[in-house]
Amino acid sequence: MKSVGTRSRSAVGLPPGTLVFTGKRMLDKPKISYFHYNPDAFEEGIIEQLDVCRDLRHKEGITWINVDGLHDTALLACMGEIYGLHPLIVEDIVQTDQRPKVEFFEDYAFITFRMLYFAKEEENPEEEVLEEVISEQMSIVLGRNFVLSFQESLGDVFDPIRERIRKGKGRIRKAGPDYLAYALMDAIVDQYFVILEAFGDELEDLEDEILGKPTPANIQTMHDIKRELIYIRKSSWPMRELITGLQRDEGGLIKPDTKIYLRDLYDHTIQIIDTIEVYRDVVSSMFDIYLSTLSNRLNEVMKVLTIISTIFIPLTFLAGVYGMNFKYMPELDWKIGYPIALGMMGTTALLLLMFFRHKRWI
Amino acid sequence: MKSVGTRSRSAVGLPPGTLVFTGKRMLDKPKISYFHYNPDAFEEGIIEQLDVCRDLRHKEGITWINVDGLHDTALLACMGEIYGLHPLIVEDIVQTDQRPKVEFFEDYAFITFRMLYFAKEEENPEEEVLEEVISEQMSIVLGRNFVLSFQESLGDVFDPIRERIRKGKGRIRKAGPDYLAYALMDAIVDQYFVILEAFGDELEDLEDEILGKPTPANIQTMHDIKRELIYIRKSSWPMRELITGLQRDEGGLIKPDTKIYLRDLYDHTIQIIDTIEVYRDVVSSMFDIYLSTLSNRLNEVMKVLTIISTIFIPLTFLAGVYGMNFKYMPELDWKIGYPIALGMMGTTALLLLMFFRHKRWI
Amino acid sequence: MKSVGTRSRSAVGLPPGTLVFTGKRMLDKPKISYFHYNPDAFEEGIIEQLDVCRDLRHKEGITWINVDGLHDTALLACMGEIYGLHPLIVEDIVQTDQRPKVEFFEDYAFITFRMLYFAKEEENPEEEVLEEVISEQMSIVLGRNFVLSFQESLGDVFDPIRERIRKGKGRIRKAGPDYLAYALMDAIVDQYFVILEAFGDELEDLEDEILGKPTPANIQTMHDIKRELIYIRKSSWPMRELITGLQRDEGGLIKPDTKIYLRDLYDHTIQIIDTIEVYRDVVSSMFDIYLSTLSNRLNEVMKVLTIISTIFIPLTFLAGVYGMNFKYMPELDWKIGYPIALGMMGTTALLLLMFFRHKRWI
Amino acid sequence: MKSVGTRSRSAVGLPPGTLVFTGKRMLDKPKISYFHYNPDAFEEGIIEQLDVCRDLRHKEGITWINVDGLHDTALLACMGEIYGLHPLIVEDIVQTDQRPKVEFFEDYAFITFRMLYFAKEEENPEEEVLEEVISEQMSIVLGRNFVLSFQESLGDVFDPIRERIRKGKGRIRKAGPDYLAYALMDAIVDQYFVILEAFGDELEDLEDEILGKPTPANIQTMHDIKRELIYIRKSSWPMRELITGLQRDEGGLIKPDTKIYLRDLYDHTIQIIDTIEVYRDVVSSMFDIYLSTLSNRLNEVMKVLTIISTIFIPLTFLAGVYGMNFKYMPELDWKIGYPIALGMMGTTALLLLMFFRHKRWI
Amino acid sequence: MKSVGTRSRSAVGLPPGTLVFTGKRMLDKPKISYFHYNPDAFEEGIIEQLDVCRDLRHKEGITWINVDGLHDTALLACMGEIYGLHPLIVEDIVQTDQRPKVEFFEDYAFITFRMLYFAKEEENPEEEVLEEVISEQMSIVLGRNFVLSFQESLGDVFDPIRERIRKGKGRIRKAGPDYLAYALMDAIVDQYFVILEAFGDELEDLEDEILGKPTPANIQTMHDIKRELIYIRKSSWPMRELITGLQRDEGGLIKPDTKIYLRDLYDHTIQIIDTIEVYRDVVSSMFDIYLSTLSNRLNEVMKVLTIISTIFIPLTFLAGVYGMNFKYMPELDWKIGYPIALGMMGTTALLLLMFFRHKRWI
Repeated sequence: MKSVGTRSRSAVGLPPGTLVFTGKRMLDKPKISYFHYNPDAFEEGIIEQLDVCRDLRHKEGITWINVDGLHDTALLACMGEIYGLHPLIVEDIVQTDQRPKVEFFEDYAFITFRMLYFAKEEENPEEEVLEEVISEQMSIVLGRNFVLSFQESLGDVFDPIRERIRKGKGRIRKAGPDYLAYALMDAIVDQYFVILEAFGDELEDLEDEILGKPTPANIQTMHDIKRELIYIRKSSWPMRELITGLQRDEGGLIKPDTKIYLRDLYDHTIQIIDTIEVYRDVVSSMFDIYLSTLSNRLNEVMKVLTIISTIFIPLTFLAGVYGMNFKYMPELDWKIGYPIALGMMGTTALLLLMFFRHKRWI
Repeated sequence: MKSVGTRSRSAVGLPPGTLVFTGKRMLDKPKISYFHYNPDAFEEGIIEQLDVCRDLRHKEGITWINVDGLHDTALLACMGEIYGLHPLIVEDIVQTDQRPKVEFFEDYAFITFRMLYFAKEEENPEEEVLEEVISEQMSIVLGRNFVLSFQESLGDVFDPIRERIRKGKGRIRKAGPDYLAYALMDAIVDQYFVILEAFGDELEDLEDEILGKPTPANIQTMHDIKRELIYIRKSSWPMRELITGLQRDEGGLIKPDTKIYLRDLYDHTIQIIDTIEVYRDVVSSMFDIYLSTLSNRLNEVMKVLTIISTIFIPLTFLAGVYGMNFKYMPELDWKIGYPIALGMMGTTALLLLMFFRHKRWI
Repeated sequence: MKSVGTRSRSAVGLPPGTLVFTGKRMLDKPKISYFHYNPDAFEEGIIEQLDVCRDLRHKEGITWINVDGLHDTALLACMGEIYGLHPLIVEDIVQTDQRPKVEFFEDYAFITFRMLYFAKEEENPEEEVLEEVISEQMSIVLGRNFVLSFQESLGDVFDPIRERIRKGKGRIRKAGPDYLAYALMDAIVDQYFVILEAFGDELEDLEDEILGKPTPANIQTMHDIKRELIYIRKSSWPMRELITGLQRDEGGLIKPDTKIYLRDLYDHTIQIIDTIEVYRDVVSSMFDIYLSTLSNRLNEVMKVLTIISTIFIPLTFLAGVYGMNFKYMPELDWKIGYPIALGMMGTTALLLLMFFRHKRWI
Repeated sequence: MKSVGTRSRSAVGLPPGTLVFTGKRMLDKPKISYFHYNPDAFEEGIIEQLDVCRDLRHKEGITWINVDGLHDTALLACMGEIYGLHPLIVEDIVQTDQRPKVEFFEDYAFITFRMLYFAKEEENPEEEVLEEVISEQMSIVLGRNFVLSFQESLGDVFDPIRERIRKGKGRIRKAGPDYLAYALMDAIVDQYFVILEAFGDELEDLEDEILGKPTPANIQTMHDIKRELIYIRKSSWPMRELITGLQRDEGGLIKPDTKIYLRDLYDHTIQIIDTIEVYRDVVSSMFDIYLSTLSNRLNEVMKVLTIISTIFIPLTFLAGVYGMNFKYMPELDWKIGYPIALGMMGTTALLLLMFFRHKRWI
Repeated sequence: MKSVGTRSRSAVGLPPGTLVFTGKRMLDKPKISYFHYNPDAFEEGIIEQLDVCRDLRHKEGITWINVDGLHDTALLACMGEIYGLHPLIVEDIVQTDQRPKVEFFEDYAFITFRMLYFAKEEENPEEEVLEEVISEQMSIVLGRNFVLSFQESLGDVFDPIRERIRKGKGRIRKAGPDYLAYALMDAIVDQYFVILEAFGDELEDLEDEILGKPTPANIQTMHDIKRELIYIRKSSWPMRELITGLQRDEGGLIKPDTKIYLRDLYDHTIQIIDTIEVYRDVVSSMFDIYLSTLSNRLNEVMKVLTIISTIFIPLTFLAGVYGMNFKYMPELDWKIGYPIALGMMGTTALLLLMFFRHKRWI
């Protein structure tokens, strides 16, 4: 997974509230797009100048402003000012390694969590590799009549929502900004399922291989899955608290109607967490199988070595004895010396084979 | 276990409330059957047209409608409308990978959990394999005078309950719909015991084998049991919460009389969870035995190899020395050269045997 | 341990409240004995006819009825009726795989838990095996002036209590039925200590063996202890809750005086649980030692093999070279050829020995 | 650690409140000493007759009676009577395997926990062994104007406290009996630190050895430390609850001033528990290192064996071929037969060496 | 990590409140510096005489006194007196092994926790070793108009804060002493991120090595990281409680404005703890890989040995047979004896190779 968060050294030692963008700069210029809608109409566009924001702020209807790219801290500070955000909140938006959380203020709520999605691979989609999971910080500011969303880079999972706004499909244009915020979160949580499903498939393949003929490559795959699960868990555990926090809101930002939907979202989150735990258990059980298969194979290899060595080493010794050049070795002159020697060898081999059969090695 | 739930990609990106059936379509047409009863009489039948539902809705007495097959989403949406269900609930019924839960609404409660049962094998019942566990989502809607139950496929564990309704045996016809819902849940939880008992037997057999003569097949069986237990645990843990939730109902859907029965059900659930934990501990202890048995065997194999090699390799060397073709090797001309050489070999072998005896290897 | 509870298939599918005895039938006929006492007098006997129960029910003083053997479900149902027990309670008594619990009703409390004791071995008491632990379900019904106790089979740990009633020793005749119930539970919990002490001794012996000279039999003993501890833990964990439940009783069944004794009992239970956890940790640490000892031994065996092989294989090769039959091998004709060859061999052996010494293998 | 508590069989089956001393009798006669003090004066002595206790009971000022040796149960029962102790409390004092706990009564509080200290070794203090940890039950009864302390044997860690009382140093003579009880507990908890520090040193030495050249003896040391930690943890975990219990006292036995000191004691206890957990983690990490070092060494040994065998076995075969006695073996008659054979051998050896180099084994 | 805290023996046995410095004396003389500021002005200096403290105590504005070096216990006792600190608090400052905690008193709060930072290495900064982590106790006393900070040695992470005070940058001069205390804590928590980031980099390098070509040195690095993480966890877990404690203050020491900042600090602490857990999981997964790689390699080594031995040992035996010196061995006289023998050898080798191919070893 890309961009897993420990706070960058660059932010250390500065006064709280100082804006330092801690992610990778992935865009030249942030892209700010907006939707403005009410049950009857909608309007959308790209914002080039922040004055538009100021206008939208006080216009009737619901506004959704989406910012792609967080490195232009001046611009974000300015937006923060327009929408009356606490400096620490703007700092949290810019530091792209926040723990998922929700914070309530008088006029708005600040929600931050991680968006996970598979990197798009245009060229060879048939290839059988685990696609890379991209982890991006997603911040949402939910106000009385607006929703601000901040992403690190272009590309998101919100196109179906945009389409629903455009077509006025479902509740989305009739409901308030809280429902829009819910819809955004729901879209992101759905992606977690997509990723977990891919892991589930991967695990099943891996299981077949390990029970069949394990290779050292499996262990790396297991480790990769395990690590990814660790990081996804880190992203999804605090989601529970986050959604519970939203459900408990008493400031009127979240309407009772929307709370039913949040309950649904909460169920999904729990299901994600459960599934992660199940997968972790499964991986660790597979690791045990892997190790025991290695042990089994070593045992088998050693048995072959032992059987062959144990049979032929004594025989070779016997042959060696009659290969000695002593002048006075009576057996050598016997006519039946050679057959006797061969007979002794055969008997020895037979006895040893019976011993191994007795030990159930063959 | 079949059909273990991560949410299908097909549902991702759609607005909440959109009905997408995420299971496998196992029937051509859903089968809807009903019971209508009061303490004195009962009536049962198959519903072909939803109008019947509408009639039953307002008829005196208790109605139980059971739907087998969830792929006809239009039909379910229609039923949802007749019984006044929230669209999200109908979505939950159709998405067959819900986490067990209960949700209360003003006029009804929605209960969803998993029904586990062994696949029926008609042909060779004597075969000694772990039968496949089928996992199916079971949803129950408990209303003031009706119970709706939704299953993914035909075949369930409710025949004894149907019989009790028909014969008016026990409390079932006298009690309300809450008791019927309890009876359905009780029947399903009982199946968990059947499955766990089968696992218990399997574990005992496995234990005997592993302590006797373990084979690599055992490790796969252990892994299978472990994985099944992981999934059953995932299904049964949330049952606790679910039943506690029902017990705490204050809306009058669950009558005090029934709560005593729910306490009983709760005890059973706890017992299932306890048993799963015990089995998990036992499996993991068996895995330890398995590994140590492998190690023991390797040690034994290596000892045989080492003893044989260590005795004969030096002897072969001695024989090799006297097999050299040097012209001037005085020993070769001695009359007692050969007996001396044999004596040396015998002594060497004896000393080595004593060394091994001293090491307690033989 | 015998009789570890998953619910029997035989009870599945029956309406709740149906009595199905799920244990093994260990007696031909249940034995019902009773004590009736007050501070000044006592009376005891065997009950052949249930009418006696009915009489005792309404007689002044405290009655203790003990039932050995639970397979006569008709008789138990009848007793349940006499004492006004809920049908589910009678079902719980008969199903001998209950989780330890307490349930309060208006006029009585129902307590169920497991009695553990060592099977009596009359013949060879000196044998050094872990005696078998018998696990039996014990149910107690505590009423306002009576105590009913139900056991699966004859043989219990209550003889000292019977003696105390007979002799009027201690508080037992002066105190109420709650104290008697406490005394019964205390006697059973004391047996847990006896069993754990035996395990403790066993563990100490095992530890000495494993640190000395471990054998594969040890691993089986470890597994047996581990499994027994798992089952004892399953029996004792819920005891905590059970006793806490009794202490919290506000219906007057448990008098304040007795609650001090229950606190003592609670402490004992905690101590049992602590000891089990300690033993589990110790067993798992011993398993680690066992495994590492195996590894150590394998290392030692391999070192011997490697040293012997590595020294003699090159020497044998040298001997082989001078055993070749080429016509033109100048060394063979040298007078000092043989000593030189021996010298080379000696030097090689010496160098290898020095190499092993350097590696600290010898 | 000595005397780790499972309840002795000797106490089983007796009525609660029966006094059975379950420890080892370490003294011929219990030794009872007392201090009586107020801010201005103090008096100390040995009590031979219990009447002195009775006198002290009603005398102004604070009394501290310390009893060494618990086997004289009659004497203790008598003391219990003088100070109005509940029979179960006297039983707890005598049964030397209590779980640490505090119990409040109307006029006194009963505190019991374990005192750990290193056995004193007079003779060879330079020896490098882990000194034996002695574990002794310590019971304290804190009354309105007295403190009773009960120890299993002579020898304790209270001499500095005695000195402070004698010299009137610090708060001790000015404060009440609650402060004295605190001081006793503090002295004991301090000993835990001493013991843990010794373990810390031991662990550091062990770590150096294991990372350097591990021996099988290390594994035993690890096991010993682990087991001691398990037992110390068993003694210290309940201390937390115990001190919290004291802090919550509302009966006036613990004065607010003393509660600040108890908070300090609580912090120490938490620190002890934290340190134990840290040490457990460290030991378990060291065990992993140990195992992997064994594996590494085995690998190394096997590599040497494999390299030597793999090089010389084919060469010996070649030599064997030319040692055959066939009449018609043309090579044997060639003049350059011998050099060619040697060359073949050299080449084979070289190729194998290159193979090993390629595998990075050498 | 240096200086990990178990309490020193030197403090054991002394009355509570006795000042014993338990750290290492790192300075000759403590260095006391101060800042005194209000929104408009500031003044700073070094305090040589404690009278200055007394003056600062009662002067308007906010005072920050920082003490480097804790071994001069007399001086600290004196300061404690000036600022009215409880003797136990001064003891806590001096004993440099406290568990992080906060304690509230009427007029001040006492905060203690650990400051972690990398030791500065002036000479060879390019070296690729994990720099040593220094752990130092940091105590803060937060009063109504002052902040006292106590460190074990010179060198801290507060220079940016000093700069902010000097330049009046940010809120620091406008806000109260609570904000200053927050700023100090924030600076220290930021260092935790720096250290964890370094561990993260180290872990990534280690992972590459282990998946590539693991060496025994890796296991030591893993152990080092694991141990450091254990100690950092010990330092950071109680921070959560500490900050929660500060947030719950109702005595007015912490102003509501500052509580928002504390919430931010709390989030950072949680993130640190999460990251530690993630790293621990990753290390333990890497250890599994390491072990399995060792096993894989052993398997590979053994396979080579087995293949070579198994092929050549029978061949050598055959050569040995025809090297025997029996007078009557008809084969030896055959013209085609030699080619037949070679053919037999070749066939044997071929068959064995096919066997290995069948086993998929080659």
